[in-house]
Amino acid sequence: MGTALLTDRYELTMLQGALADGTADRRCVFEVFTRRLPSWRRYGVLAGTGRVLDAIEKFRFDEDELAWLERESVVDARTLDFLSTYRFTGDVRGYAEGEVFFPSSPVMVVEGSFAEAVLLETVILSILNYDSAVASAASRMTSAAVGRPCLEMGSRRAHEEAAVAAARAAVVAGFAGTSNLEAGRRYGVKTIGTAAHAFTLLHDDEEEAFRAQIASSGTGTTLLVDTYDVTRGVELAVKVAGTGLGGVRLDSGDLGVQAVEVRKQLDALGATGTSITVTSDLDEYAIASLAAVPVDSYGVGTKLVVGSGAPTCGMVYKLVAREDSSGTLAPVAKASTSKTSVGGRKTAARQLDEDGRAIAEVVVTGRDEAVAAWAPASETMRPLLVDLVTGGEVLPGWTGAEGVVTAAARHEASRDELPRGARRLSTGEVAVPTTSLVLD
Amino acid sequence: MGTALLTDRYELTMLQGALADGTADRRCVFEVFTRRLPSWRRYGVLAGTGRVLDAIEKFRFDEDELAWLERESVVDARTLDFLSTYRFTGDVRGYAEGEVFFPSSPVMVVEGSFAEAVLLETVILSILNYDSAVASAASRMTSAAVGRPCLEMGSRRAHEEAAVAAARAAVVAGFAGTSNLEAGRRYGVKTIGTAAHAFTLLHDDEEEAFRAQIASSGTGTTLLVDTYDVTRGVELAVKVAGTGLGGVRLDSGDLGVQAVEVRKQLDALGATGTSITVTSDLDEYAIASLAAVPVDSYGVGTKLVVGSGAPTCGMVYKLVAREDSSGTLAPVAKASTSKTSVGGRKTAARQLDEDGRAIAEVVVTGRDEAVAAWAPASETMRPLLVDLVTGGEVLPGWTGAEGVVTAAARHEASRDELPRGARRLSTGEVAVPTTSLVLD
Repeated sequence: MGTALLTDRYELTMLQGALADGTADRRCVFEVFTRRLPSWRRYGVLAGTGRVLDAIEKFRFDEDELAWLERESVVDARTLDFLSTYRFTGDVRGYAEGEVFFPSSPVMVVEGSFAEAVLLETVILSILNYDSAVASAASRMTSAAVGRPCLEMGSRRAHEEAAVAAARAAVVAGFAGTSNLEAGRRYGVKTIGTAAHAFTLLHDDEEEAFRAQIASSGTGTTLLVDTYDVTRGVELAVKVAGTGLGGVRLDSGDLGVQAVEVRKQLDALGATGTSITVTSDLDEYAIASLAAVPVDSYGVGTKLVVGSGAPTCGMVYKLVAREDSSGTLAPVAKASTSKTSVGGRKTAARQLDEDGRAIAEVVVTGRDEAVAAWAPASETMRPLLVDLVTGGEVLPGWTGAEGVVTAAARHEASRDELPRGARRLSTGEVAVPTTSLVLD
Repeated sequence: MGTALLTDRYELTMLQGALADGTADRRCVFEVFTRRLPSWRRYGVLAGTGRVLDAIEKFRFDEDELAWLERESVVDARTLDFLSTYRFTGDVRGYAEGEVFFPSSPVMVVEGSFAEAVLLETVILSILNYDSAVASAASRMTSAAVGRPCLEMGSRRAHEEAAVAAARAAVVAGFAGTSNLEAGRRYGVKTIGTAAHAFTLLHDDEEEAFRAQIASSGTGTTLLVDTYDVTRGVELAVKVAGTGLGGVRLDSGDLGVQAVEVRKQLDALGATGTSITVTSDLDEYAIASLAAVPVDSYGVGTKLVVGSGAPTCGMVYKLVAREDSSGTLAPVAKASTSKTSVGGRKTAARQLDEDGRAIAEVVVTGRDEAVAAWAPASETMRPLLVDLVTGGEVLPGWTGAEGVVTAAARHEASRDELPRGARRLSTGEVAVPTTSLVLD
């Protein structure tokens, strides 16, 4: 399926008006940014870039879609004609996927004619707002897990396609794998999963269920031991699988207390190599509270796929510059009482101290040619915008499985560069301030 | 695209174990329910049923999917063979879409072999959890709007496919239309939308922009008047369009104060029929606070698509009964310390008083044959479960545009049946208690 109708109707209505009065060809610069972060977040994590590029490539109106637009009189014949050959031929730059961001960071910049660029607003924002919400939550979880693997298991608590995107975004932010099969197929991420309570309940008793699972999946599997009684479940698990049992999973109760008891019991039974996975309404705070508990991995569901308190980012797609009637690219901005923004093209860099720690997010504004050509003069200014689409062609490396692997590596490096306090879970200031550099 | 891989890996792992030990054919009853509502909600709204039925019909493993499962060694050859001809042949009953629900309401009941029914868990929960979260929020908004139209405009703040589902769910719960074009095409819901600030900023000045929009869309359009100065914007709008201007939209600032001023200004200019639409971070509380303000319609975005504080429902898919080794259908339930549930097949009815007001949610349990055959003896017990899929065939009327229209009508009737206090926005008890009726 294409992505062209995953769009607000007004994008097409505006296009029709602009085609009629000749402004549709004006060269425009649109910028994606957020005005603020949730109060308890010290940084955001950009995710979804690879998916945006896929969506731009698939942004074509097919015959069925055009016929529907005509039948519903959404737009006039001239606009339908334009849409029938629509293809984005402009440029997209942006923060590389996995990069951290702050208020006002220009995380994506789309340049093209008004007609071509305005249509992309809805689908770009849908993707970046959701995927970045999940990645921003996921990064706090992997940070709180201090090296223990986090596994994404939230598919059932999100829209079925959002679930695939959530699994991808979680891996960008350091998750080790996902339960979601389609995410595995589409993006090459590792999939995991053994059994639910239903498998135990299906059998006449727990021992039969454990025997069936071991016979089918081997002793390296993870047995879910809390269907009836945890102590009996653990005893039975080791009896059936032997001390080489791969793992046990706890999915209810006081996980901290139970994990300590289960670890002791496993060790006493000789199953010292059997790992403990905990799952059950975990979030970054619950993960942090289990840091001193003998847990080997965390399965995270609901709180991850709903962004742990912030289910969407507040990213907007604003026209910041456009050609005027004389053909000059001029900055523009909404000017009434609220929701104001800063006009003009922007670029950005992260300012580092001598130790390579981030100390500021520098947003560069000013004369358009100067901003477009700007390159940092110093090694302590790391430029943040990269080319993603040039002349309508998506550049290689950003999409598919490759895009996810490089985004995950980039996120780790970008997070490591932040001041130490950035990993605090408490409410507080953003990790580094956003400052501005004006060129002339 | 099919829906078969929108699934947690453990569903397939369990299937493999059950195929190997002969339990895969055991007849099973799975039940979808939620343990609680958000503390500030007095009822939930079931949405997504039509989408679930579409997903069940499309739940097939194609050659590419099977090849991927084989290559990744997700399951063994015997399981791949089973999946290659998979088709759900069982039964699904459930609450009709749009119906309100309460804790423990058995909103969907899936019956079939373990092999057939267990695979559907993830996609069923993904759909019902997201769509019902949106519909439950939407119902409070349409209730607070007391007859004024609510318009869904949140696509950009949700995953791009979730956005389509959100638009559909909003309409089920009383919204009058959506900005999302694909929702219009797929489900026949009304689409709306005129222009954003970008259209005004594209032009050399506001007057040119308004002239272009009027020329393209006619005077019946809605002009966005808050790009520069609202008072000047309104004056200009009426100057350009005349007093027959369809509407103006306010998207920033103090909407209550501004709407009063704009109404006075429009009336003074003679544009007494020009409507006022407000948009900007509205939720049910903001809508309620505007009840006495001269506003004609509400455009709702972010808060709707993220479920206004509850971005997912806590619905679970639990095995409640299954054939044992003797072929008898027996109730089963998890029995350890928390997350317990009640075993056995259930059905449900809403108990009404003489005036037709709901007074209890009656969940019927007990001997399986008695529950399966149960019909209320009295007109004050309205049965809630309807047939959705019989012998693998999706019954007509529940899907597509027809399903949405009937679900919206049903929601209105179901909400009207609730006690008056059910519409309060404040934190408090659920509208009616859940009680149980045990048959033997």
